[in-house]
Amino acid sequence: MKSRRFTLAVAVLGLTVVFASTSRAFAQSDPLPSWNDTPAKQAIIAFVGRITNAGGPDFVAPPDRIATFDNDGTLWVEQPMYVQLAFALDRVKVLAPLHPEWKEKQPFKAVLEGDMKTLAESGEKGLVEIIMETHAGMTVSEFTSIVTDWLATARHPRFKRPYTELVYQPMLELMTYLRANGFKTFIVSGGGVEFMRPWTDKVYGVPPEQVVGSSIKTKFVMRDGIPTLFRLPAVNFIDDKAGKPVGINEYIGRRPIAAFGNSDGDLEMLQWTTMTDGIRLGMLIHHTDAEREYAYDRQSHFGRLDVALDLAPTNHWTVVDMKRDWKVIFPFEKQ
Amino acid sequence: MKSRRFTLAVAVLGLTVVFASTSRAFAQSDPLPSWNDTPAKQAIIAFVGRITNAGGPDFVAPPDRIATFDNDGTLWVEQPMYVQLAFALDRVKVLAPLHPEWKEKQPFKAVLEGDMKTLAESGEKGLVEIIMETHAGMTVSEFTSIVTDWLATARHPRFKRPYTELVYQPMLELMTYLRANGFKTFIVSGGGVEFMRPWTDKVYGVPPEQVVGSSIKTKFVMRDGIPTLFRLPAVNFIDDKAGKPVGINEYIGRRPIAAFGNSDGDLEMLQWTTMTDGIRLGMLIHHTDAEREYAYDRQSHFGRLDVALDLAPTNHWTVVDMKRDWKVIFPFEKQ
Repeated sequence: MKSRRFTLAVAVLGLTVVFASTSRAFAQSDPLPSWNDTPAKQAIIAFVGRITNAGGPDFVAPPDRIATFDNDGTLWVEQPMYVQLAFALDRVKVLAPLHPEWKEKQPFKAVLEGDMKTLAESGEKGLVEIIMETHAGMTVSEFTSIVTDWLATARHPRFKRPYTELVYQPMLELMTYLRANGFKTFIVSGGGVEFMRPWTDKVYGVPPEQVVGSSIKTKFVMRDGIPTLFRLPAVNFIDDKAGKPVGINEYIGRRPIAAFGNSDGDLEMLQWTTMTDGIRLGMLIHHTDAEREYAYDRQSHFGRLDVALDLAPTNHWTVVDMKRDWKVIFPFEKQ
Repeated sequence: MKSRRFTLAVAVLGLTVVFASTSRAFAQSDPLPSWNDTPAKQAIIAFVGRITNAGGPDFVAPPDRIATFDNDGTLWVEQPMYVQLAFALDRVKVLAPLHPEWKEKQPFKAVLEGDMKTLAESGEKGLVEIIMETHAGMTVSEFTSIVTDWLATARHPRFKRPYTELVYQPMLELMTYLRANGFKTFIVSGGGVEFMRPWTDKVYGVPPEQVVGSSIKTKFVMRDGIPTLFRLPAVNFIDDKAGKPVGINEYIGRRPIAAFGNSDGDLEMLQWTTMTDGIRLGMLIHHTDAEREYAYDRQSHFGRLDVALDLAPTNHWTVVDMKRDWKVIFPFEKQ
């Protein structure tokens, strides 16, 4: 009886194992269903296969499986303008009654009159002025509420949907696939870190502590006995271009083995990630699909892809051709 | 037969469950064996019990279980001077042959002559000069090697052991206990982040991406076609006092529910962590054991504990009395 019980126990456990393996195999049959079976997808699968192959020469231990993703144009839409810029312009309109002087003062006048040409001419200086007026002067938690409220109601001018629905389904699958293979996924974006943190966990599965971005200075004060963090009108860190490797080192403290971007702003992140010993994955999303999303590269005001595109072949960076490589662009296109 | 198989299967699974619970209960019988059964230990156990009690009013979801730990004097020894200062002074001696002018230039002259009084008189300005000469002017990976090599050979003047052995056993147990209960443990230290990251994972189980600290500026450059991060002689961020809540917000992006410190440098971190709704745990390690470690508080040059000690009762912060509350101080004291 003892022996028989043992046999049955083994059978039960065996069945459990078989069931578990089957469901796992089924779930993993195609981890990237929204990707066409083109070289881009093959490069991802091959890379993950090699660095997770425990006996192989390219094995990377799980703690070192760090992947960094740009946000604007890599994970969500950045046309006709960066989402955060749309937010800032809306905030200028909301705050205008408190600032009657803006009617005559650039770049605010241009924003209020919808004069995008004059606004563009105000350049980076104008942009910084707008950011300081709309992103500073409140507590950190007040700013979080403002961002959350805005995202709940704002709609993309072309797609008429919340911006958080305009994320790229193939990239969501890619992040999930990497995490299932022991990766820790980080966002490393030129965008404001406190503009992203309120929603990245829900939308991308990336928690606040894995979001690196640009920031303004904050100050801690006890206000009426309550500890408070205030947002100050001063730049703290710009997480773009050569700032990206700096930000990766400062905020993550490890060198990634895979990096995903879409513009020249990601060039240095891809260099830092891939130009070293060991196999690495560098990937650029090339926006080639005017019909389903947008087509832009060298001449674009937002997300210009020029130098990095030229350097891709030499550095063995995979260039994703959205039109060719992605079956669907957005989650809502799925049946 | 079917029914009997089912019964046996249930029995087998039941046994497995019983076995698992037993071993778990055994492992958890005393998660803090190096703590005496005093109010400090009881406060920790009660706090963890309440915030992990799924049905209870104080439940905190795992992603929000963030605990922050100061390093110097909270996790490892900080007397007779901060370990990083001992490192910097040793580096001055190593680099002296390259700087003949230091023989006549303060504060370097004082370091080379072992004149601690003059060194102390050089104050923060002198300290910054020493840090810039010893912590900048190399790549990030070169600095990591320098730190690692130094820690391998340097010995504490009193205990004659590597500094990484002079960590507090009760705090190691506390970090393990918190992690076993779904916490993510972070270091938030006034010390240099790149001085800590090379060894915190091995010594504390805290990976580089969960270490927040002070930093100098770095710069990304392509040097002979190789991407390189250089350490510059300029302060980037001071993660001390009111800088700690700022650092927590900037680098972690969540508010902790538990914070552990030992000096006035941790005051604002404890305020930010505990002075809010919901139950929180704020703890100060009070060094009261001159025999086994050191006894110091209000008058100490390193790790002064004064204002925070006075504010502890009002804020319900638990003050650990090392002599009374800790059975052992260092791991090597364990049998």
